[in-house]
Amino acid sequence: MRLTYTKEAQSTECRARAATIKTRRGEIKTPIFMPVGTVGSVKAVSVEDLEEAGAQIILGNTYHLYLRPGTEVLDVFGGLHDFMKWKHPILTDSGGFQFFSLAKLTKRTEEGVSFQSHIDGSRHVFTPERSIEVQNHIDSDIMMCLDECTPYPSDHRATKESMELTTRWAQRCFDFWQQETDLRNNAFGIVQGGMYKDLRSASVEQICGIDFPGYSIGGLSVGEPKELMMEMGEHTLALMPEEKPRYIMGVGTPSDIVELVMMGADMFDCVMPSRNARNGKLFTSEGALNIANQRYRKDEKPLDPVCTCYTCRNYSRAYLRHLYKSKELLAYRLNTIHNLHYYMNLVGEIRQAIMEDRFMAWRKGFYAAMEGGIQ
Amino acid sequence: MRLTYTKEAQSTECRARAATIKTRRGEIKTPIFMPVGTVGSVKAVSVEDLEEAGAQIILGNTYHLYLRPGTEVLDVFGGLHDFMKWKHPILTDSGGFQFFSLAKLTKRTEEGVSFQSHIDGSRHVFTPERSIEVQNHIDSDIMMCLDECTPYPSDHRATKESMELTTRWAQRCFDFWQQETDLRNNAFGIVQGGMYKDLRSASVEQICGIDFPGYSIGGLSVGEPKELMMEMGEHTLALMPEEKPRYIMGVGTPSDIVELVMMGADMFDCVMPSRNARNGKLFTSEGALNIANQRYRKDEKPLDPVCTCYTCRNYSRAYLRHLYKSKELLAYRLNTIHNLHYYMNLVGEIRQAIMEDRFMAWRKGFYAAMEGGIQ
Repeated sequence: MRLTYTKEAQSTECRARAATIKTRRGEIKTPIFMPVGTVGSVKAVSVEDLEEAGAQIILGNTYHLYLRPGTEVLDVFGGLHDFMKWKHPILTDSGGFQFFSLAKLTKRTEEGVSFQSHIDGSRHVFTPERSIEVQNHIDSDIMMCLDECTPYPSDHRATKESMELTTRWAQRCFDFWQQETDLRNNAFGIVQGGMYKDLRSASVEQICGIDFPGYSIGGLSVGEPKELMMEMGEHTLALMPEEKPRYIMGVGTPSDIVELVMMGADMFDCVMPSRNARNGKLFTSEGALNIANQRYRKDEKPLDPVCTCYTCRNYSRAYLRHLYKSKELLAYRLNTIHNLHYYMNLVGEIRQAIMEDRFMAWRKGFYAAMEGGIQ
Repeated sequence: MRLTYTKEAQSTECRARAATIKTRRGEIKTPIFMPVGTVGSVKAVSVEDLEEAGAQIILGNTYHLYLRPGTEVLDVFGGLHDFMKWKHPILTDSGGFQFFSLAKLTKRTEEGVSFQSHIDGSRHVFTPERSIEVQNHIDSDIMMCLDECTPYPSDHRATKESMELTTRWAQRCFDFWQQETDLRNNAFGIVQGGMYKDLRSASVEQICGIDFPGYSIGGLSVGEPKELMMEMGEHTLALMPEEKPRYIMGVGTPSDIVELVMMGADMFDCVMPSRNARNGKLFTSEGALNIANQRYRKDEKPLDPVCTCYTCRNYSRAYLRHLYKSKELLAYRLNTIHNLHYYMNLVGEIRQAIMEDRFMAWRKGFYAAMEGGIQ
């Protein structure tokens, strides 16, 4: 089923917008954050924990799932949903990012990518067609086209060549998706173009010229200064079609999300809430805190006085600090529940503010709350 | 409040018995297994997971809790219960076992034990009195006397000396508990005596001559052959008072529990279900399985077809194998939920069988179910 994107509100002060995306596995209210469930599990939490946090869609990594458990195992369960017991939509990346960041001996040709597994050294080849095929085995509701994520920094010529390859691969993904699958799932194109506005413009023209149900922006948050990321995001988002979802891949901090929503983005994914949780870095309405800090040793307060998550409803900073310092496994779950709740609550508040056309005032309050520091 | 032990059923075929222990924090239906929550958390699970598994009382380790978070922190919360949000009874060991197995530079005198923390090398001294005092800060409902767990093997003379020291320390613990605390919590004496029946007999006479509300057997499962453990258990249990709880410390496998219940034991604790879970060794009604095994790669069945735990209600062996092989944190929780449920269900079935005076028939069925192997 081709997804539908129905805009429900448009800020009168900025490009921020709220919408409902409908997929065959349910609705997604945007702006939305998608927790990352790399290998069939959002690290440290259960699907019930995700639902309680308000997650509506999660992300799976095709590279990881392809290597382990593998499509042969997923096929027994008719895909990832029944395997991991997640009933709501799943988006998968194409594998491209991990081929270059995690796999070994990666070689790219016009045809596709060959690489060696980081787990057992086995060799594999992914083409654009194969990536869509594997994602169809995973049965993700939103599949991403195989792209090349241009490294930072890259010169104009290399970035242009890479961006044009991404376009050719996007067309091949689109053709395979249209002709060789039953179209029950959706495919998104990915805009590249590095840190060059002319190339971002050209990429939007090329990628958004292919009739995908949605588009994403790749190649941001790859080491560039924050200002440059925002400049590229603003430039690119403004060129993308109004009537389809816009997804910023791999971004970002809470304030990154606030800023990019203001510029017109709808969807985000990032390992930050879950990874930071496992490292004791916890988000609160008053800023981030490091739970390992000695100052929390006898602190009876919850992590965030305004948070309604399971962790904050039940446990003190002192207990969370103790679990974290003692490396107790429960620490990772309680911290992750909190950080995911923080992110889901953040996009929930953003959406509400857009619906009521008070996003810019909300944004001001969001930054003001951080100024006093953690109480 | 001094706990009460009310026998509800006595097998007519063996020494097995069922009872209710009442404490100020609730009832304990025996025979009972107590999950081990070393440092204020039963590893990998939440208190709700414990309640759902049917846990009625958990164990805390005084040595660990004393070092981290420390009594200063626990005092802020009025003890361990509110700190970790466990509302039901808690039993704590005396610290003695860890002084000798985990701490460094341990030195024992008539007065007590001096040792060095395994965490930061700091030096500490525990006397029998100090152990009860610390356990009173933890506010555990059942406190254990400081004892010396005789190593295996030990000669008769060393075992006798050690056992007699344990008796003198038990008297000091009793006196401190009676005179220096408000008696809201209970203290249990520990029978020692190594692998010598005459010393076990003497220890029972000495320890059970002190009016504790319950008694435990220590120094079993310390490396001796299984037959010797059972011989010592049977000999010792038969000598212990009928009208008070009998607790076997640090034991054991499912069949150990079945055998020792038959000999008259009421309470057990062991890290086995939780530790094995984290190592992928899972208990089922048909025997134990290793979830890492290749044979479970595409296995859609639950771990145990007759198990009603959250893990078995929701997840396949294939998914659990995948999580375990991928070292996903969720694996540890799902596996631990299952193994704890197995143990709690085991003692629940045992209790039911005793109540209906069909324990020996139940025991026969228990062993028969293992014979076919895992399906």
